Order: sequence, then structure tokens, then C-alpha cells
Amino acid sequence: MRVAYNEQMTELADTLGEMAGLAGAAMEKATQALLQADLGLAEQVIGEHEKITELSVIAEERAFALLALQAPVAGDLRSVVSGIQIVSDIDRMGALALHVAKITRRRHPNHVLPEEVNGYFAEMGRIAVALGAGAKEVLETRDPERAAKMHEEDDAMDDLHRHLFSVLMDREWKHGVAAAVDVTLLGRFYERFADHTVEVARRVIFLVTGKMPVEPSNESDDLTTYPEL
Amino acid sequence: MRVAYNEQMTELADTLGEMAGLAGAAMEKATQALLQADLGLAEQVIGEHEKITELSVIAEERAFALLALQAPVAGDLRSVVSGIQIVSDIDRMGALALHVAKITRRRHPNHVLPEEVNGYFAEMGRIAVALGAGAKEVLETRDPERAAKMHEEDDAMDDLHRHLFSVLMDREWKHGVAAAVDVTLLGRFYERFADHTVEVARRVIFLVTGKMPVEPSNESDDLTTYPEL
Repeated sequence: MRVAYNEQMTELADTLGEMAGLAGAAMEKATQALLQADLGLAEQVIGEHEKITELSVIAEERAFALLALQAPVAGDLRSVVSGIQIVSDIDRMGALALHVAKITRRRHPNHVLPEEVNGYFAEMGRIAVALGAGAKEVLETRDPERAAKMHEEDDAMDDLHRHLFSVLMDREWKHGVAAAVDVTLLGRFYERFADHTVEVARRVIFLVTGKMPVEPSNESDDLTTYPEL
Repeated sequence: MRVAYNEQMTELADTLGEMAGLAGAAMEKATQALLQADLGLAEQVIGEHEKITELSVIAEERAFALLALQAPVAGDLRSVVSGIQIVSDIDRMGALALHVAKITRRRHPNHVLPEEVNGYFAEMGRIAVALGAGAKEVLETRDPERAAKMHEEDDAMDDLHRHLFSVLMDREWKHGVAAAVDVTLLGRFYERFADHTVEVARRVIFLVTGKMPVEPSNESDDLTTYPEL
């Protein structure tokens, strides 16, 4: 029973790690597509998205089978339940990368971004990809210290997002409302992607230690980056 | 065993229904606060948000206890697992209502919305509240036909969101970029609130019928409302 549980749990964890890897890769390509108005790359992200959705279904089925066949308790049960919740977070990460790719495709052959904000998105993309890699690593190693450190990278994302808003809100913004709408939504997609990676990390901390880190889940999206006028 | 399962499952379902009721009420008040620049009402939504978070924790604990003590299988197991996923959706609904209230507070004593788009938000708010009530009803009755109908109201939300973008993108928009950023984010919050109610409905259909309705979960947020330029 115990051997079977361990084997199945490892399979579930591997699937989650693979999903996180795909979501991170999708965000990396989507960012490159966005920055370079690269239609082929955007199409690739859109075409590959299905894979993440398929793995979500597989991961949920694995978790379900584990509960049905092994009836785990205590820490083992916590691991499976956390796994189910983590599926949703990674699924959203994939959807957010997909959004970036779709906006890129919709505006092609134009660039979505005014050159003035390219640097922000290059950096937000870099952090998002690092956080995606962090989520994958934490799922594989279950290292709570590594998980706790992801907060710092998320703070860097929030800082960038805040600065981005100040650029947008500046009277000097001369790229019009349509570009501002795109930039607003894109900024939100990157910020939410980062939030979900941190949520994965928090759930891993919970499943290892049995304690949820202090910050309640909503506060990962508490609009602290939202502009003052 | 069976009696205990039924009792505990009823408690879990009641908690989820209560959460959906609170999230719907929060969105109703937040919309009124937004439309009338009512700081007191916005503060009330912000102050009451904690209650939804607390119920999330209780619902998750109830689901966990059910799994640990009853080791349900088949349809019963599906109900509990769906319950865990529904907690996340309702939690987000509450967070989105909170966001509306916080933007209202941040801009007070100014109105967030240019008068031109008040009507859109009044209607988006009405639909969001109806969908929240639908989610509550579906959680309580487990009626898959009622659940399936929620799609129509969500379509109406998507239509409004699409129109809102066309107002924003119109060259005649004369309220500046800052107001456009607020309207963009607010529109997204209402649309996502509606998406989560539909996701709750889909999960109830799944737990009753054992089959997930055709539309994959991501498509509830597939940017179909996103503006062409």
C-alpha cells in the first residue's frame, strides 16, 4: 500500500513539475513573441497550450485515483489535496501565457508595446520565467526554504508593475488609449502569473510543514501595485 | 458511515453556498459603491471580506476531514474533490469584489467611472450578482439544468465587456488614459467574476453527472471579448 502510494504520488508530482515547466516555457516564448512581434512564436504558444490542459486532466485523474485507491491520511492526504489545488494554479499560469501570445497575434504585424515600455516587459517576462522555474523546482524538491524565497522575486514583479502604472498614468504618455489598454491588461497577466507561482510555493510549504505561510492567499493579489492618482 | 458522510457533505455544501452568497452580496455592494462613489459601502465590502476567507479555511478543513474520516469513493469522492476546487473559485469571486471596492476607495471622493460608462457597469454588476445567486442556487440544489443555463448570462457579460472595449478604444474617448486604465481593470474584474461563477456551475454539473461540460475551463477566459483594433 505504502509503496503504491509513493509511486503514484511521485507520478503526480512529476506531472505537476512537467506542467510548471511547460507553463514557464510558454511564458518565455510568449514574452519573446510580444517583444519581437513574432507571429510564428505566438502561434507556437497557442498551439502548444493544449498540452498543459491535457496534463491538468491527467494530474486530476491521478490525484483522484490516489484518493480512491489509497485513502491516504494526514500528511499524505495533505499532499494529494494540495496537488489538486496546484493543478488549478498551473493551469492559470498556462492560460495567462496564452493571453500574452493571443494579444501578440491580434496586433500583428504591429508591435503591441510602445517602445518606451519594452524594457518593463522584458524584465517582467524574465522574472515570470524565473518564478515558473522556481515553482517547478519547488514541486520537484519540496524544499520549503527555496519556496519561501520566491516571495522576493514576486516583490520585484510588483515593483515593476507599480512603475509600469506610473508610466501609463504620466501625462507624458503619448501612445493613446488603445495602447494603454493593452499595456494595462498585459501588466496584469504577468503579475497574476507571478502570483500563481507564489501560490504553488505556498502550497508546497503547507504540504511539507502542515502550516500555511502567514500571508493569506488573496493578499498575493491585493492591488498594492495599483496606481494612486 | 453513510449517515456521517451525508451529514458532513451537507455541511460542506452549506458552507460553499454561504460563501457564494457572501461573494454575490460583496459584488452587489461593491458595484453600488462604485457607481455612487460611496466610501462607506466600499469600506463595508473591504471589512467583510475576511469572512469569505475564513469560510474558505473552514470549507477546506471540512473537505479534508471528510476525505480523512470517510474515505469516500466514486461519486462521493467526486463531490468532495469538486468542493475543494469550488472553494478556490468562490474565494476569487470574493477577491474580485474586494478589488472593485478598493478602487472605489482609492479614487474617493472622485467617481472612478466617467458617466459615459456607468450604464455598462450597472448592467455588468447586475449580471454578476445574478450569476453569484445562480452559483449559490446550483450549489444548494445541484440542479445541472439550472447550472447549464448560467452560460447564457455569462455570454451577456461577455457582450457587455466587448462593447465596453469598443467605447474605450473609440477615438472619441475623452476621459484620458488614467480613467481608461481603471475601466479596463474593472471590466476585467467583472468578467472574471462571471467566469468563476460559471466554473462553479460546471463543477456542479461534473459532480452530478460525472462528465465535465464540453468547454474546457480556460475557454471561459479566452479573450473573445478582447478588442480588435
